[in-house]
Amino acid sequence: MSRLADIYPADRVTLREVGLRDGLQLAQALPSTEAKRAWLAAEAAAGVRHFEVGSFLPAARFPQFADIDAMIAACDAAGAHSAALTLNERGIEAALASPVDELVCVVSATEAHSQANMRRSRAAAVALVARAVAERDARAPGKLVNAGIAMALGCSLSGDVAQDEVLALAEACLAAGADIVGLADTVGYAGPAAVGALCARMTALCGPRPYIIHLHDTRGMGVANAAAALDNGARVVDASLGGLGGCPFAPGATGNVVFEDIVFLAESLGHPTGIDLGGLRAARAIAEAAMPGEAFHGALHRAGPPANAHWRA
Amino acid sequence: MSRLADIYPADRVTLREVGLRDGLQLAQALPSTEAKRAWLAAEAAAGVRHFEVGSFLPAARFPQFADIDAMIAACDAAGAHSAALTLNERGIEAALASPVDELVCVVSATEAHSQANMRRSRAAAVALVARAVAERDARAPGKLVNAGIAMALGCSLSGDVAQDEVLALAEACLAAGADIVGLADTVGYAGPAAVGALCARMTALCGPRPYIIHLHDTRGMGVANAAAALDNGARVVDASLGGLGGCPFAPGATGNVVFEDIVFLAESLGHPTGIDLGGLRAARAIAEAAMPGEAFHGALHRAGPPANAHWRA
Repeated sequence: MSRLADIYPADRVTLREVGLRDGLQLAQALPSTEAKRAWLAAEAAAGVRHFEVGSFLPAARFPQFADIDAMIAACDAAGAHSAALTLNERGIEAALASPVDELVCVVSATEAHSQANMRRSRAAAVALVARAVAERDARAPGKLVNAGIAMALGCSLSGDVAQDEVLALAEACLAAGADIVGLADTVGYAGPAAVGALCARMTALCGPRPYIIHLHDTRGMGVANAAAALDNGARVVDASLGGLGGCPFAPGATGNVVFEDIVFLAESLGHPTGIDLGGLRAARAIAEAAMPGEAFHGALHRAGPPANAHWRA
Repeated sequence: MSRLADIYPADRVTLREVGLRDGLQLAQALPSTEAKRAWLAAEAAAGVRHFEVGSFLPAARFPQFADIDAMIAACDAAGAHSAALTLNERGIEAALASPVDELVCVVSATEAHSQANMRRSRAAAVALVARAVAERDARAPGKLVNAGIAMALGCSLSGDVAQDEVLALAEACLAAGADIVGLADTVGYAGPAAVGALCARMTALCGPRPYIIHLHDTRGMGVANAAAALDNGARVVDASLGGLGGCPFAPGATGNVVFEDIVFLAESLGHPTGIDLGGLRAARAIAEAAMPGEAFHGALHRAGPPANAHWRA
């Protein structure tokens, strides 16, 4: 676990920027590679150390990720940790052949979503995690394998999701060798009570090993859910600059929880992030200019932190 | 306390709509009285029972509240509880002569803000609460007196605010005879740790007597702060439809915490509100049409609650 502890220290909060991946999945106007590089560089200069830079998918169908090699290189040049989605065998192959630091496999919390979204059972998805781990061990032992559990707090197809099932899946992913597991409220169904309860159980399951909480602000609960997660032991939180990232299952909905607001939240709860809000403002300006048709969300960026008070706990 | 307990039951959550007061203070395009009536009626039909309908101020300088008598009548006609700000002796006089159900006096948490905003000391503001109570007792014993403590979680002039001072002021307001005290994060300085800590102490101070938490979403913490307040015993929460209500001390900032999102939050935490989200959507459409230049916020209204899952705890 030593490499994992270097990347995701158990004793502090890590914020992962997922906007360059999740935020671009449904974007209307795709930013240029040059703009994405500038956005990443500005956010890295602000102190962000972890980026999901894309997804290993066919460039013809997913042009937003056609430049994934360039984005991995940009992340590396910025001295930050790069992660990319690997949704099938070909994605895993491509990731292992690339310099990306972290493979992100996805497992659905429900059988219905697993079949509909990835045309495989949950068991087959866990087996794919095991395969990624085995090939990583053989060919690129320095990389991390992340297993993200989609729909972990409610499913657009199946509705309620039993926390017992999510925890069993998390345990199966860890048993398959995943370095880190993520819990995703993919469609923003949860309130803070559900997030807090799931994180408390996940904290107990993982012990000193960190796990990721991935939240969407679809119903305005994003920051409250992040607070509940942090209060219950989560130490790695996904977010996106300006809350980029709509949801295919909730048209017009807001996207990921807003990165800037999460920095303020974490610091106010006594978790230093090492991230400069002024620097995030500069990064946001780049992203906004590069994606003129996109809705950017959040409140902190408008008001800035209190100028005359101690807002860090 | 029996009248108080009828209006603000201690054993359930009450949401107060402050948009017709706080939401109009800085509005660019003022809605017509007819539109405001329709907005209030639609929200009342959705189950909202408590409205701040305006402020007793000179109509020439505050045209947005010139129709306060009509709005009190509209609230009464809807069978809902009406409250209005009374910022000075004349306001108290006017309120007592009107059929409004609740007088809202304002006390600043800091001496600097009290002097700058109301040109009186905090002690004089508490004395004004006592005067409102005495005159109410003599002339209109059915009305409630509410004392709202502005800047209770941080001050645009003084910065940090000691919770000891806020609690001492709350105690002074109660000793002056106020039926209910409100704690306001007027400029949205706080995160959930500060809100939770203050509410825990306020819950201990007030015992079975309810108090109000009034939150602004200036830095995106509104819903998280409301969750912390509810988790620590607050049972009356102010909010405004679409988060209307900018802040004079934070230009461009978002306003009050979003009513629709707070309904979802409260229900998800196991607090039934009796409020129908579809009905709120209809009310919002009226308000949006009446205030075309205004920014409406929130996320729940776009996505709606999960259609296929139990989102109420």
